[in-house]
Amino acid sequence: MLKSDSNKTVGVDHQNELPIGVFDSGVGGLTVLRALQHHLPNERYLYLGDTARLPYGTKSADTIVRYSLQAASVLVRRGIKCLVIACNTASATALEALRERYPALPIIGVVQPGAQAGCEASATGRIAVVATEGTVRGGAYQYAIAAIRPDARIEAMACPLFVSLAEEGWTSGPIVEAIAHRYLDTVFSAPQPPDTLLLGCTHFPVIRQALQKVVGPEVTIVDSAQTTAVALSSLLTSMGWLSKQEGQSRGVAVRFMATDGRERFARVAAYFLERSIPADSVELIDIALAEG
Amino acid sequence: MLKSDSNKTVGVDHQNELPIGVFDSGVGGLTVLRALQHHLPNERYLYLGDTARLPYGTKSADTIVRYSLQAASVLVRRGIKCLVIACNTASATALEALRERYPALPIIGVVQPGAQAGCEASATGRIAVVATEGTVRGGAYQYAIAAIRPDARIEAMACPLFVSLAEEGWTSGPIVEAIAHRYLDTVFSAPQPPDTLLLGCTHFPVIRQALQKVVGPEVTIVDSAQTTAVALSSLLTSMGWLSKQEGQSRGVAVRFMATDGRERFARVAAYFLERSIPADSVELIDIALAEG
Repeated sequence: MLKSDSNKTVGVDHQNELPIGVFDSGVGGLTVLRALQHHLPNERYLYLGDTARLPYGTKSADTIVRYSLQAASVLVRRGIKCLVIACNTASATALEALRERYPALPIIGVVQPGAQAGCEASATGRIAVVATEGTVRGGAYQYAIAAIRPDARIEAMACPLFVSLAEEGWTSGPIVEAIAHRYLDTVFSAPQPPDTLLLGCTHFPVIRQALQKVVGPEVTIVDSAQTTAVALSSLLTSMGWLSKQEGQSRGVAVRFMATDGRERFARVAAYFLERSIPADSVELIDIALAEG
Repeated sequence: MLKSDSNKTVGVDHQNELPIGVFDSGVGGLTVLRALQHHLPNERYLYLGDTARLPYGTKSADTIVRYSLQAASVLVRRGIKCLVIACNTASATALEALRERYPALPIIGVVQPGAQAGCEASATGRIAVVATEGTVRGGAYQYAIAAIRPDARIEAMACPLFVSLAEEGWTSGPIVEAIAHRYLDTVFSAPQPPDTLLLGCTHFPVIRQALQKVVGPEVTIVDSAQTTAVALSSLLTSMGWLSKQEGQSRGVAVRFMATDGRERFARVAAYFLERSIPADSVELIDIALAEG
């Protein structure tokens, strides 16, 4: 719907064929992109990874809002019909500021759909959340879950090594399992353990199978990438904004943009997308020049 | 010697009593600080961790130079007698630019002393270097070693999980050993393995004992933090710039500055310094306002 910052409405058919904008601080959001492509295969996507300024999790709220507005501005000016904030930190911190700046653009974050799905999956109300240090400290999942289900008992655990494992591509085997045991055993071997494990970091779906092995088959693992994709699919369907084109006629399915390190982006992207992408298909952009 | 950017020379006694400036992108440089304090216990130190903008390793050379000049500017304006770049990426990328900007200030990086010590320690000339991805890709250690010892056979390995382990405080035990085996076994179980392992990242001294266990006692581990401290000690001694004061009379031994996340800085610092520091002893500064 938005072709420029001026919020000019364009023809409905044209608007439906605009890509979905996806923004993350780096490569983690590619798990969200993969889920979106699975649920909405006819859509085109514009993915922006702010790799020059990652990680967002350790930065102040003002800085995260400014960076998120700059990233959104780049995507909006290229033309997108909706925006997915595929970054937990930015979702928790900048969602309201983005909605204020772009009131006519549907914007969806990963925290709310993840919290919703976690609450629905849990029979006992005992929910464990694994995330980065910044997300846990910010408390976004804890607040979102408590708002939906005030009786929930939430254990939020910062697991920074899971991020490094995902980026290194060490997604299964004894090392990832030993690290998962060290992070999770105390909570999951308690007398009344959680029945649901919510992956509150976009990197973590990459190690999902290893986590399932460690917590056991009786624990439901909820992945905010999947639930965000389902939420966006419902939203676009209800608005009549789905693409009408199919297959090759719609052009390149995904355009990638990064703010630094194209080679690294392409290499690490392979673990997250489960397919290789050539480095020269990643466009390098200078986001600091974008309007904040 | 320098009290301001104008390179104004001040009295010799006063200059000797100025602190040593230490700059890193985050907390890793604290291993260098610790080594400096061990070798130069009568000195005062001003430590700046640019935690808001870490990691430097994934950023472009222009950006690293700009950030390093800004950080140095903060330290120089507070008054320092010399500058230690306790960051491999900044040492490899910004040393010349810093020396050009501050021609009268002795400036020492960690790469050259580390490479020198690695060459001296190796009998066979087969040297393994472990570092971050950025340092390995930049090739600074490989070039520095080859310049000193052209016959050296260098294996440079990126070991990003070592950084996460150090920051998490998981410095010994089966997890760190399993990860070290995965990174190092191919090279160290080759027919003619390296006899020297050079720690090319300021985080790695924290896991030194685990690495020694994995590579075996016959391999010499060289730590650029130690060798940088020795090099600075020699330099200050030869210049007659050592502090004449001792013990309590010299005031606070170290002042810490960080550009974001004082609590995290203080917490992680404990693993690197092997002593706790209170969060409110870390001064939060806005480095972007400094002159680049």
